[in-house]
Amino acid sequence: MSSYYGHNTAPSAPPEPHPQPASHPGSQPGVGYPYQQPPVQSQQPAYGYNNNYGHNQNQTQNPNSSIGFGGGQYGYPPAPSFPPGTHPEVIRSFQMVDLDRSGFIDAKELQQALISAYQKFSIRTIRLLMFQFRNPLDPFRTGPKEFADLWSCLGQWRAIFERFDRDRSGKIDAAELRDALYSLGYAVPPSVLQLLISKYDDQSGRRVELSFDSFVECGMIVKGLTEKFKEKDTRYTGSATLSYETFMTMVIPFLAAE
Amino acid sequence: MSSYYGHNTAPSAPPEPHPQPASHPGSQPGVGYPYQQPPVQSQQPAYGYNNNYGHNQNQTQNPNSSIGFGGGQYGYPPAPSFPPGTHPEVIRSFQMVDLDRSGFIDAKELQQALISAYQKFSIRTIRLLMFQFRNPLDPFRTGPKEFADLWSCLGQWRAIFERFDRDRSGKIDAAELRDALYSLGYAVPPSVLQLLISKYDDQSGRRVELSFDSFVECGMIVKGLTEKFKEKDTRYTGSATLSYETFMTMVIPFLAAE
Repeated sequence: MSSYYGHNTAPSAPPEPHPQPASHPGSQPGVGYPYQQPPVQSQQPAYGYNNNYGHNQNQTQNPNSSIGFGGGQYGYPPAPSFPPGTHPEVIRSFQMVDLDRSGFIDAKELQQALISAYQKFSIRTIRLLMFQFRNPLDPFRTGPKEFADLWSCLGQWRAIFERFDRDRSGKIDAAELRDALYSLGYAVPPSVLQLLISKYDDQSGRRVELSFDSFVECGMIVKGLTEKFKEKDTRYTGSATLSYETFMTMVIPFLAAE
Repeated sequence: MSSYYGHNTAPSAPPEPHPQPASHPGSQPGVGYPYQQPPVQSQQPAYGYNNNYGHNQNQTQNPNSSIGFGGGQYGYPPAPSFPPGTHPEVIRSFQMVDLDRSGFIDAKELQQALISAYQKFSIRTIRLLMFQFRNPLDPFRTGPKEFADLWSCLGQWRAIFERFDRDRSGKIDAAELRDALYSLGYAVPPSVLQLLISKYDDQSGRRVELSFDSFVECGMIVKGLTEKFKEKDTRYTGSATLSYETFMTMVIPFLAAE
């Protein structure tokens, strides 16, 4: 069960969830892209579409996941709070950096909060994470709900990363990145993969290798852009007609988040 | 005469070229976007298209601009060289940082080369400049031809920036950014402008203001994405149909360049 959102573990997931085994970890996702196929004229995505975008028909929504608890009992607006059942370590990590108890943390604080369970991510990766798991009311800060989702997602991604980092070097190469993204539900065309890793190419002639930090950075770009594109590809044909304004509006937030 | 490319001054232009006065420096470019208009089914862009994308029908190409001189006389491949008539200050600035006389400079060296005539740009802006003025043979390094083009472009952009920075504060606000981009031939829809400046919003409630560095960063994003989109909008209708792979391939280089 791969996930379109890539983080469909429940908010109460422990810090290191065990992802489901991928159905085709070593297969070639670089075949059968939308432009090579007749468009699927159906609201229900076909399997080919599933492969192309990583759409997950089994994706479930937890209707209770945004219900907060606590706060508000003295007439103040309720403070943002964690979904019921959130793992205590997640709450502890958040509260450790939310010193003013505002219920929101900024990029630097998020970076700090993730260190204990994960590692020190670059501020670029942190901003992409914040952008992907943004609070619609305050896109510049992360609340408890987004933090719990982000934490679960990172746990799932780390498990995938470790699976493909077979020699435990802490690095994966381009082919392993492709397979890892495929396991997360994203079939990235070879040309796109090449562009994606070009930023990690130091021109030394050595094979490009990605740390977990860079893997998450790449993953957030692929996840975010794919989801944006899918919003415009309402008939699931694998292509979309975009006006200039729509195109610019879709893309610029990723540049602004960097 | 505004320019679609934003740098159609000759490569021999002096360090601070005087841009042509814009025809509508204070007008409202935020009206009449493609999606509000019937598509123009013509190879020759209509005026409305010109407004929307900043296409310049008067744009001229200098057929000699890529002809090098010198080098090659001893049977070695000719070293990359400046176009004839390049201003001596441009050549001097380049040679000052190209210590190994390879004919190419990297991002750090480019940053250094621009300091004397312009300022210290952030490495983000430098990478976007390198990406926009890239050498097709070596996108990671900048040669003399690209350097001369880049230098001319910056001169034109600085003159535009100074025109809109009326109080000489070294900063322009959102409305001035819109007008400055319009003068350069880019009519940016309000929604796009808002996204573009959001990264400079420090959430203090103060008006967003951009330095020249940030202005160039925004300008390179708008210029680059607009040109990419135009390549796909071959019939100049103001919209384009893109496959998932094409969309990803168009956008990711901007993220990788950052």
